[in-house]
Amino acid sequence: MTRPRIAFLGTGIMGAPMAGRLLDAGFPLTVWNRTADKAQPLVERGASLAADPAMAAQDADVLITMLADGPTVDAVLLESGVIGALMPGCLVIDMSSIPPALAKAHAERLAGQHAGYLDAPVSGGEVGAKAGTLAIMAGGKAEDFARAEGVFAALGKAVHVGPAGSGQIAKLCNQAIVGITIGAVAEAVLLAEAAGADAAAVRQALMGGFADSRILQVHGQRMLDRTFVPGGKVSTQLKDMATIVQVAEEFGLRLPFSALGRDLFRDLDSRGEGGRDHSALYLEIAHRNGRGT
Amino acid sequence: MTRPRIAFLGTGIMGAPMAGRLLDAGFPLTVWNRTADKAQPLVERGASLAADPAMAAQDADVLITMLADGPTVDAVLLESGVIGALMPGCLVIDMSSIPPALAKAHAERLAGQHAGYLDAPVSGGEVGAKAGTLAIMAGGKAEDFARAEGVFAALGKAVHVGPAGSGQIAKLCNQAIVGITIGAVAEAVLLAEAAGADAAAVRQALMGGFADSRILQVHGQRMLDRTFVPGGKVSTQLKDMATIVQVAEEFGLRLPFSALGRDLFRDLDSRGEGGRDHSALYLEIAHRNGRGT
Repeated sequence: MTRPRIAFLGTGIMGAPMAGRLLDAGFPLTVWNRTADKAQPLVERGASLAADPAMAAQDADVLITMLADGPTVDAVLLESGVIGALMPGCLVIDMSSIPPALAKAHAERLAGQHAGYLDAPVSGGEVGAKAGTLAIMAGGKAEDFARAEGVFAALGKAVHVGPAGSGQIAKLCNQAIVGITIGAVAEAVLLAEAAGADAAAVRQALMGGFADSRILQVHGQRMLDRTFVPGGKVSTQLKDMATIVQVAEEFGLRLPFSALGRDLFRDLDSRGEGGRDHSALYLEIAHRNGRGT
Repeated sequence: MTRPRIAFLGTGIMGAPMAGRLLDAGFPLTVWNRTADKAQPLVERGASLAADPAMAAQDADVLITMLADGPTVDAVLLESGVIGALMPGCLVIDMSSIPPALAKAHAERLAGQHAGYLDAPVSGGEVGAKAGTLAIMAGGKAEDFARAEGVFAALGKAVHVGPAGSGQIAKLCNQAIVGITIGAVAEAVLLAEAAGADAAAVRQALMGGFADSRILQVHGQRMLDRTFVPGGKVSTQLKDMATIVQVAEEFGLRLPFSALGRDLFRDLDSRGEGGRDHSALYLEIAHRNGRGT
């Protein structure tokens, strides 16, 4: 079986290790990045370097975008000539985190060009990207998801979560749970500390029961250690929480825990803590209670 | 090594399977229950039946209470003559969930009788009690915890979380995380459904990333299936959330996610849904958004 030729646009913190895993899996790969030298290590490992996004796109069977946000994906797909350069039948997989409505618009626009489309944002961070253990949430047509399975297998575990835009919805669901659960763990750690319990032992005990979560395990430890080095930044979590509340409103939903989380992350960010790990929500709740760190 | 003789007071839904595991582990066991026939199956398996709590206590090396709430533990320990009947050096282990301040008061009272004390509430429910996989959160002196390890090993995994009262604090931390995480998962499921994604697939995808938790796995499935058969009841979760907020205030803390959770569970309970599983918080947030089930 001939492996499809992949164009990979955006080789930043997440994109570079993901593209590296595709190289390791034997896919012929063309890369492009706005800052070309970030793609250089991939070129040294055998990838072709494209001078612009359209040149990367022109001979690709699968085109993957891993870019900063919605406007950047918009600019690369629509304004830089990618969409006109695609071969008919090309599959575009946008693994960036962008608003669901924008993902749907991209799906429709690409359908008009006889190209397939999946929105397939990820969870798992740089560590998951390097290890090939990303959680991949893919929206789009079932036949496009089936075509992408070999590509996804090199990157992590993919689940088809519905029609176009659903991958982005799933990512927002993921971020809502992450942000709120950080708040839950922060309150538990604060209560344990204030009450004179051994908060580290409390975390250990709770990991054996229904309160167990990845957040308790990872972010709970960061709170206990007061090590708020990202990881996922407060500023990013704030952007996600604000998007969750806004997208929910578009669907006629008011989500009280998500709204509270947005407000707390906003206050934390406003106090100049946007660059810390999102587990620093602990500091915001402590601050509101007149407690230092 | 001779196994210590255990008196077990309270053989209800949780207590009966716990006492059964102690029998299986070979501990000589005396049981008492307010409704004696609930203790009968244990008697048929070899336990002695005591006519009242004081008679159960009189020859016990270890006395375990697994009772409904603080007032019940108070009544059994203090009013029914247990405390006067204890042998010097007896270890009292209260595995009920009661207010931390009351646990501290019991510890002091028992110290005056030359008895040891641990507050050791559990998480894991009836299933965990039967399987011997309870998470046990134990507060008290290190030497008392060491004496209890053989007993705890028959029941689950115990962690020493600090001085007397800390077990109850840890249990409250557990319940805060459980209640709030149920809210987080409910909002994610609601958003996925409202946006037309495949909510069951979204849960599956999220289980691979940072949003994973026991609550997503267990209670998330109940929300998708609309099966709100307890499990843990809304009315119990409400009582716990109210206690969390109150105890936090005693330590000078305002916990915003816990307070929001209390308010939502209160409204759900007020609408006559107190007997449902606590995952029915999904229904409250749906109801506030004018959505049926």
